[in-house]
Amino acid sequence: MPLPELKQNKERRQRLLECALDLFVERGYFNTPVREIIAKSGFGTGTFYNYFADKEDILKSLLDEFAIQIISSVNNYYIQEKDLAKRFIETKRVNMEVFAQNEKLTEIYCRVAGASDVIDASLQQFENKLLDFFTKNIEYGIRKGVFNDVPASPLAHGILAMEKYLLYKWIVLKAVNKEEMIAMVLSFHETIARGLVKKQ
Amino acid sequence: MPLPELKQNKERRQRLLECALDLFVERGYFNTPVREIIAKSGFGTGTFYNYFADKEDILKSLLDEFAIQIISSVNNYYIQEKDLAKRFIETKRVNMEVFAQNEKLTEIYCRVAGASDVIDASLQQFENKLLDFFTKNIEYGIRKGVFNDVPASPLAHGILAMEKYLLYKWIVLKAVNKEEMIAMVLSFHETIARGLVKKQ
Repeated sequence: MPLPELKQNKERRQRLLECALDLFVERGYFNTPVREIIAKSGFGTGTFYNYFADKEDILKSLLDEFAIQIISSVNNYYIQEKDLAKRFIETKRVNMEVFAQNEKLTEIYCRVAGASDVIDASLQQFENKLLDFFTKNIEYGIRKGVFNDVPASPLAHGILAMEKYLLYKWIVLKAVNKEEMIAMVLSFHETIARGLVKKQ
Repeated sequence: MPLPELKQNKERRQRLLECALDLFVERGYFNTPVREIIAKSGFGTGTFYNYFADKEDILKSLLDEFAIQIISSVNNYYIQEKDLAKRFIETKRVNMEVFAQNEKLTEIYCRVAGASDVIDASLQQFENKLLDFFTKNIEYGIRKGVFNDVPASPLAHGILAMEKYLLYKWIVLKAVNKEEMIAMVLSFHETIARGLVKKQ
């Protein structure tokens, strides 16, 4: 069983996460046994299990931290930009940049969906965090009277879906480059904003 | 090499496609060797190769026919409904019903993305057909003066992305039922329509 968080060494935990991520991208999640992650890290087997229960636990941890990073980058941007209508669109530049800067995690996110129930449970947890965050931001805009009163959850789903699909087109299909990806996501949000933002 | 289409027996071709689809859903695309498809069909090995070059060719054919079926169902609905604003939303009911009625194909579509380059090429061809169709319908509405002049391709991507994501939530995650899935897709389109459809 993993140690309680207070007893964990942060650098060691981080090193195990990074080794796992490298191997997942290199050989695929399914073709990476835990023993290879341990070998790459240079730690003993016991050390690994002080931090993670199994391979799924690593994936879950990677995605958990990724969600926190995405949400806090957007929150930092919100501190500078108070215009709700403008930030509904521009926030997506920040959001997509965080995905783009974490190319390996994004690749895992785009490739493993549907592959197994355990993975889908981890992905769903990751996506639910983003969906909640998007939904709350839309509801906040509605409460402040800047947005029209539209159902927030379906719109949040559409937004996450668009981000995920364009990430897939960029990182898996290589059918668009990073700039085209961001431009398409922004254009889509501009179209939504036409109906979402109240006319002044 | 497969026979020219005119020399092919349609029922035999259809039987091979159906056997393959059953096996793909049952055991996964990657765990289904061609010889099992042949065994299930009851045909000889030579017969299989009169119709398909390999397993990827079967997947491509399944997706090709699926795209044609989706597009023609929507086109049939367009014959009855001429109000472009109304049909922008209601067409999604038809569209999602075709996915839902072809549960096995939808499951394959939702599960195999990102798994290999060959598969992604087949998926991309399938999705490009739908994206073209959605884009043309939006452009038609703009030309007719019913829709505002928004960039059609990013919006078409957002629409396909939302459909795909909700299909995944329904068929893979089982996090929503069919009615909830359709209701969310329609709600999302209603929100878009607020900005897309010109005020009269």
